[in-house]
Amino acid sequence: MADAVEIRIERLPVGHVRADDFKAVSAVLKSPEHGEVHVRNKWMSLDPYMRLGLSPQAGYVAALNPGDMLNGPAVGIIEASGHPDFPVGSHVLSQMGWRSQFVSQPEDCGAALLVDVDVPLEWHLGLLGLTGVTAWLGISKVLRPQKGETIFISGAAGAVGSIACQMAKLRGARVLGSAGSPDKVDWLVNELGVDVATNYREQDLGAFLDENAPEGVDCYFDNVGGGMLDTFLVRTKPGGRIGLCGAMSQYEESDYRAGPANFFSVIENNLQLLGFNAFRLSGEEWAEATTELKRLVKEQGLKPCHSIVRGIKNASLAFAQMFEKGQLGKLLVEI
Amino acid sequence: MADAVEIRIERLPVGHVRADDFKAVSAVLKSPEHGEVHVRNKWMSLDPYMRLGLSPQAGYVAALNPGDMLNGPAVGIIEASGHPDFPVGSHVLSQMGWRSQFVSQPEDCGAALLVDVDVPLEWHLGLLGLTGVTAWLGISKVLRPQKGETIFISGAAGAVGSIACQMAKLRGARVLGSAGSPDKVDWLVNELGVDVATNYREQDLGAFLDENAPEGVDCYFDNVGGGMLDTFLVRTKPGGRIGLCGAMSQYEESDYRAGPANFFSVIENNLQLLGFNAFRLSGEEWAEATTELKRLVKEQGLKPCHSIVRGIKNASLAFAQMFEKGQLGKLLVEI
Repeated sequence: MADAVEIRIERLPVGHVRADDFKAVSAVLKSPEHGEVHVRNKWMSLDPYMRLGLSPQAGYVAALNPGDMLNGPAVGIIEASGHPDFPVGSHVLSQMGWRSQFVSQPEDCGAALLVDVDVPLEWHLGLLGLTGVTAWLGISKVLRPQKGETIFISGAAGAVGSIACQMAKLRGARVLGSAGSPDKVDWLVNELGVDVATNYREQDLGAFLDENAPEGVDCYFDNVGGGMLDTFLVRTKPGGRIGLCGAMSQYEESDYRAGPANFFSVIENNLQLLGFNAFRLSGEEWAEATTELKRLVKEQGLKPCHSIVRGIKNASLAFAQMFEKGQLGKLLVEI
Repeated sequence: MADAVEIRIERLPVGHVRADDFKAVSAVLKSPEHGEVHVRNKWMSLDPYMRLGLSPQAGYVAALNPGDMLNGPAVGIIEASGHPDFPVGSHVLSQMGWRSQFVSQPEDCGAALLVDVDVPLEWHLGLLGLTGVTAWLGISKVLRPQKGETIFISGAAGAVGSIACQMAKLRGARVLGSAGSPDKVDWLVNELGVDVATNYREQDLGAFLDENAPEGVDCYFDNVGGGMLDTFLVRTKPGGRIGLCGAMSQYEESDYRAGPANFFSVIENNLQLLGFNAFRLSGEEWAEATTELKRLVKEQGLKPCHSIVRGIKNASLAFAQMFEKGQLGKLLVEI
C-alpha cells in the first residue's frame, strides 16, 4: 500500500491550455503482484506533443478524456518488485509520467531498465530522451547542414532547438535562430554560440532575413509550423531542405493537421520537406543517437540544456506556461 | 509582311477553362529587322501549368490579362532572318506558342536552334520537352523507385505520367496508377505495362489500395495534388517519398497554393515531400535528361506517347478539354 499523486484531466482545453485544466489527485497503490513493479518516479518530461492527446483530432498520440491521467516519459527507481528482470533499487525509464508512483507490469508501460549510470538521471528525459534524439535526427540524418551553409532554427531556445543549434554549429554551419524573448536571444548567442538570433515577437522575420540571409537559407529546422513555415517556403533557397519536426504553434489551434498556405512553393522551388519523428527510430538508431550525443558533450562541449521545475503539483502550470512563454532547453519536473 | 493567327485571352476564366475564354485573331507581321528572325511555328505545346497565368494568384508563371496572348513552348522553322546565328530553314524551339508565326529577337523569346535532327520535330515539345524531362527528373533523380518497391503515379496516362510509368517499370519497380476513364486504364496496362491501374472516377482509391498495396506504397508520384495527395499522406509507408510535380486538380480552384488538409502526417510518418520543377534544371542536366530519354526509346522500348490536335484554331478547345477529360500522353497542336 502506498499513496501516490496523479495528475488527471479536469476538462479538455479549447485553445490555450491552463493549469486548472488539470487536477492533482491522491491514489492508493496496491503492492506489486507477480510480474509487476512498484516504481517511484524521480523525473518526468513535459513536451509540446502531449497537447495532441487533448485535441479532438486523432493524431499519433491517443486521445484523452476528462478523468484520464496524462502520460509521457518518466524515470524512476524500483521500490518493490515481483519481476525477476527489474530488481529493487534499479532505475527505469517508462511512459508513466504525470504521477509520483505507480504499480504496473513493465511490458504494459514501456518500462526499460536504465543501465547507463555515467550521466545524471534526468538526461534520459532531456539530452538523451525524445527531444535530444529528435535534434540529432534532424541535424545528423535529415538536414545535414554543412560548413558554408546557413541554417535557420525556429524554437531555437527550446528542448529540441537548443541541441539542434549546437549540433549545427559543431558541423560548421552558420546558425540563425528565433525565440520569443530578449533573454532567450541573449542566451542563444552568448551561451549556445548561435550566430544571429531574433526575437520573433518583436522583429519582423522578413526584415531579419533580408539582413542576415538575403539569398535565402540552405535549410530550415522547423519546430513551430504555422506562419513561420510559410515564410521559409519562400525564404529557403531553390533545392533547399526544410525539416519538419513539429508544429508547436499549431497544437492549440482547432486544426493542427492542415498544410501551410503557401505549399505550392515546394513545387516552384524544388524544395524538400522532410518530416522526422524520433518515435519511429529503431533501437539501434536510438543507441547511435545517444552514444553520439554523449560523445559531443564529453569531447565537443555540447551543453545538455535542461530547465527544471520542482514538485509534481507544479507540472500543470509549467506545462501551460511552456506553450505561453517557453523555457530554456528541455523542461523537466523533478518529482 | 505576313499574316499570322494569334490566340488571345478574351476573359480570365473563373473555375473551368472554356474554349471561348480565348479568341483567334489575325495579325500582320513586319519583316525581320537586323537581329530578328521570322519563325513559322509548326508545333505548340499545351500544358496544365499554362492555367496558372490565368489565375489571380501570382505563381511561377507571369499573370496574364484579357487581350494578352498566351505563350509556351513551340517549335518552328525560320522563314526569314536578320540574325547571323539563325539561318533561314533551320528549326528553333521558343516560348512563342499560341501563334502561327512571329517576328522577334531570339534573345527575347527564349529561342534556341534545334540541332538534333534524329527525332521527329514534335518530340522536342513532348518526350524531350518539359513534360518528358519532368518525368525523368521525378523518376531518375527524385523518387528513384527500385526493384521490389511499389510506386503509385497519379495522372498516369498524362504527359508526365505516361513517361514516368514506363521509366519506373524499366527500373524494375511495381507500378500502380490512376487515370480518369476506362480507355486510359486499359491503355496504361496493355500499352505502357503498368501493373495495376484504377479509374479514379469510378473506383474508391482507398479500396484500390487496400487490395493492391495494403501496407502502403514506397513512393507516390503526385501529378494532381488535392484529395489524392491527402490520401497518399496516409498511404505512403513511413519513411516513404512523395514527389510533388504539379497540382493539376487544383489549378482551377481559387487557391491552388494551399497545403493539403492532412499535412501533419508528414511529421507523424517521417515522409519526404520532394518538390521538383524542370524549369530549374541547368543546361547540363537538361542535356543529360534528353540523352537518357532518347537512349530509353532506342534501347529499351520507351514509347514517346503524344496526342495530336490539328490546327491552331482548335488549340483553345483542346486546352479546355485537357482539364476536363485529359488525353493520352503529351498534348500537342500541329499548327
